[in-house]
Amino acid sequence: MSGPLKVALLGCGTVGSAVLRLISEQAGDLTARIGRPVEVAGVAVRRPAHHPDVPAGLLTTDAAALVTRDDVDLVVEVIGGIEPARSLILAAFAAGKSVVSANKALLAEDGVALHAAAAKAGVDLYYEAAVAGAIPLLRPLRESLAGDQLRRVVGIVNGTTNYILSRMAETGAGFAEALAEATELGYAEADPTADVDGFDAASKAAILASLAFHTPVTAADVHREGISAVSSTDVARAAEIGCTVKLLAICERVGNGDDGSVAVRVHPAMIPTSHPLAAVGGAFNAVFVEAEAAGQLMFYGQGAGGEPTASAVLGDLVAVARNRITGAAGQGPTGYAALPVRSMADTPTRYHVSLDVADKPGVLATVAQEFAQHGVSISTVRQDGHGDAATLVIVTHSAPDAALSATIAALRDMPAVRDVTSVLRVEGLS
Amino acid sequence: MSGPLKVALLGCGTVGSAVLRLISEQAGDLTARIGRPVEVAGVAVRRPAHHPDVPAGLLTTDAAALVTRDDVDLVVEVIGGIEPARSLILAAFAAGKSVVSANKALLAEDGVALHAAAAKAGVDLYYEAAVAGAIPLLRPLRESLAGDQLRRVVGIVNGTTNYILSRMAETGAGFAEALAEATELGYAEADPTADVDGFDAASKAAILASLAFHTPVTAADVHREGISAVSSTDVARAAEIGCTVKLLAICERVGNGDDGSVAVRVHPAMIPTSHPLAAVGGAFNAVFVEAEAAGQLMFYGQGAGGEPTASAVLGDLVAVARNRITGAAGQGPTGYAALPVRSMADTPTRYHVSLDVADKPGVLATVAQEFAQHGVSISTVRQDGHGDAATLVIVTHSAPDAALSATIAALRDMPAVRDVTSVLRVEGLS
Repeated sequence: MSGPLKVALLGCGTVGSAVLRLISEQAGDLTARIGRPVEVAGVAVRRPAHHPDVPAGLLTTDAAALVTRDDVDLVVEVIGGIEPARSLILAAFAAGKSVVSANKALLAEDGVALHAAAAKAGVDLYYEAAVAGAIPLLRPLRESLAGDQLRRVVGIVNGTTNYILSRMAETGAGFAEALAEATELGYAEADPTADVDGFDAASKAAILASLAFHTPVTAADVHREGISAVSSTDVARAAEIGCTVKLLAICERVGNGDDGSVAVRVHPAMIPTSHPLAAVGGAFNAVFVEAEAAGQLMFYGQGAGGEPTASAVLGDLVAVARNRITGAAGQGPTGYAALPVRSMADTPTRYHVSLDVADKPGVLATVAQEFAQHGVSISTVRQDGHGDAATLVIVTHSAPDAALSATIAALRDMPAVRDVTSVLRVEGLS
Repeated sequence: MSGPLKVALLGCGTVGSAVLRLISEQAGDLTARIGRPVEVAGVAVRRPAHHPDVPAGLLTTDAAALVTRDDVDLVVEVIGGIEPARSLILAAFAAGKSVVSANKALLAEDGVALHAAAAKAGVDLYYEAAVAGAIPLLRPLRESLAGDQLRRVVGIVNGTTNYILSRMAETGAGFAEALAEATELGYAEADPTADVDGFDAASKAAILASLAFHTPVTAADVHREGISAVSSTDVARAAEIGCTVKLLAICERVGNGDDGSVAVRVHPAMIPTSHPLAAVGGAFNAVFVEAEAAGQLMFYGQGAGGEPTASAVLGDLVAVARNRITGAAGQGPTGYAALPVRSMADTPTRYHVSLDVADKPGVLATVAQEFAQHGVSISTVRQDGHGDAATLVIVTHSAPDAALSATIAALRDMPAVRDVTSVLRVEGLS
């Protein structure tokens, strides 16, 4: 046993201050688990005066100097965003220091380069906290399932949108009303774009897909649709077919062997209420995994918040510290498979569509014919007549997304179709 | 990159043959993840003639010679049971070889000595497959949550009993009938004792408690009650109070600091249908975790079967192989906290009890008085009169288990109590 391991903390907001508190509260356990005590060498912040709880001697505004200091062994980055986080992490690597990060945006944009820089420097880059907060997920994907083949990873990875959709289902409210409530309760930020439009979930999908399929996937590769177009009609229609609406991050391996590719997307979808993900309500996160040998797995827990995120950071810190002491960098290669990323148009999906049609002979045949012309096979159809009108509810089999959206466009132009009242993809049906 | 890593496989039943198949099918991926190819050096079995699918040159009946062979790097033990598994694992350690095991009975009985032997030899002992099959659970507990404090681990860790209890709830069948069905369908073994009487779950509880609380816990320390006494009345009563009956493995930290202890038990209990564990049906397993910082987590998946278990074995194999190559033994100390294990009598629990009583003045007061005399506080009570009799359904607050069972014994002797129709512990109520 030699001296303490010294940690540089970059950022001291909600997560950073929880990390500081846990390092102090868990000092005895951390020492036992790592073999040496952990000490905070410095805390880089923009405005030291805003952090009266942090010992003044630890605070610095010069993050770049802190990460390369000789007495710093490990760096924890909880600033978020692309810069200066990226430059600081690269500087830490160049100075031979391993990094624990909670930065989903950066990892989703630049994970390949960051992994390469860490490997070149022979140090670690861990980022369990970047996806699904406290839920141990990245390490199980990277390590526990390392001897298996993953087929799909489907996650509810954004608590804000899950809260809004849960409220819409519970109260029958529309999107705007549920968003207003979420904002008032602090579940949505003043500018909710990152959550509501699926940017946050897309970053997480990119990270999950990269790890699941050993293939570089960036946020820009992810097809992204948010929830602002989800209507109370969509939610009601979902309930009628035994489903619930969730914003899903979906990473799939399509095809096998040399034809293999990956499809990565974020969009709202109906899933059966019997699916394990359907019961994940409010601000919780959960990730459902299908692997060749392991079968179906699910990981569930809190996806955000200072303490849960700090728990994930500390778990990484213990691993990185132990690797530092044993002289081993802990992660294997992640990009070796390098599968192509499939376009959304080419990705197989299933649609639910509800139509108001004229209730007269031949309409169902005409509508069915439109699906057939686009090569889309119908799984279930339900027709309810009322007066001279009828409602048609159709769930398709799997077809390329482009064929499905072309079918919908054609239906909208069809004289017999008075209105397309709900269109939403369906996931998790057998 | 040097030559292949050579694996000795001990045992070639359902799990062993799935391990062999996966090593062969995943050869390319394993090489990429480990950095060197994996090759099977030998397969130790009792009756080589029973394994026509395994190349004859690999088969041996001399397991002891196989584990110490110079060309063997790693040992995978899927024999199960105490001996010869223990001696073979110790011989492997002594010969400097790391071991991956799926042996819950052995780990639950002798985990401390095995860990010590591995540490002394500077090698690894991994056993993810020993608890909850394919679900990545032990590594998250050991590693991802290493910077957190666990409060409780509550698991459905036995698929046979979960299937039986699920069927009792669905069909109203009694235990014997549901067991017969499970046996017929192959979900229960011809001799179901290990599952039905909770021995299997108790082994897993011991392993989970040891890892969760860094404290040696053996199967003998675990209070164990099976499900054979669970009646269709219990299941019906549970439904009436919004609960479902599950066989739970419960590991709790009780008290804090110097007064801290751990309570580890396996028994059937009512849990609210809103609890994430309540929806875990059939042969699935799930483990619910509460940690100080991370909050509530749940891990869900297949708890048994050749392929799922083999997936967990291969995940461990990758980790152990990578440690072998980097020269690092991967696990931290697990027993450093050495908390005392609390007796069941002293463990705080809550009870549900249903009584048939005479419907006359003073009976409720007498019954309530009996609880008070034992220091047991009542949470909810419901009385339904029918003719000259009444049904009393009482859920208590938390009290030492001995006080609760003494209360029940006293109620049984009370003249006004005609029958105690259902007694079951309750978990997961707030």
